[in-house]
Amino acid sequence: MTATLYVCTTCRAGEVLEEDAPRPGALLHAALTDAGAPEGVEIVGVACLSACSQGAAVALSEPGKWTYVYGRLSVADAPDILAGATAYAATSDGLVPWRERPVIFRKQSLARVPPLSLPMEAAE
Amino acid sequence: MTATLYVCTTCRAGEVLEEDAPRPGALLHAALTDAGAPEGVEIVGVACLSACSQGAAVALSEPGKWTYVYGRLSVADAPDILAGATAYAATSDGLVPWRERPVIFRKQSLARVPPLSLPMEAAE
Repeated sequence: MTATLYVCTTCRAGEVLEEDAPRPGALLHAALTDAGAPEGVEIVGVACLSACSQGAAVALSEPGKWTYVYGRLSVADAPDILAGATAYAATSDGLVPWRERPVIFRKQSLARVPPLSLPMEAAE
Repeated sequence: MTATLYVCTTCRAGEVLEEDAPRPGALLHAALTDAGAPEGVEIVGVACLSACSQGAAVALSEPGKWTYVYGRLSVADAPDILAGATAYAATSDGLVPWRERPVIFRKQSLARVPPLSLPMEAAE
């Protein structure tokens, strides 16, 4: 199974940009793909993650695991994002122990959503 | 197939509360379940959607559809949340036409995540 690291490529991250200026989201996507996807992780650009006021944003998702969305990210965060994605891919449920999460994943979570396979009782 | 409306039950929605005071998230969950789940929608309480600074929060998810997370919600929004969930459940991909979305779903999106079944090309 492979975890997917979605990267919003259209995000302006709150900046006022010329129409043809590179978007912060596209720059982050390029930094991540240039660094290379870690084992067990696929990097996928997405036109919009609808987190516009809190961008640039990424999401981590995999069947059977909690989905996480992180925001207020920039190119400088690429190494930590990839480290966090590696840790996520190594879990069975998407729940990386708190202390093993990069600081940006501890402090810049926009949301998480249970896996669709989660029994109702476990979600309660 | 049934859409799941996750409701964060632990959310304090930025309020400072007495330890035993009802949480805004729990009140929202109660208002939604009291109103009753629309056809094709299941309401599931979740201990934390990790959208604490933007709560109360809900998420809409279904296999093969985009997942949406909405925030800054209160009990007064329950009817619109259920109307939005009904519209979501009626789609094949989770993408409700813009004008048919409740205003809170247009303006209070925290994030959306592609379906895991989405081909890479479509996400690009």
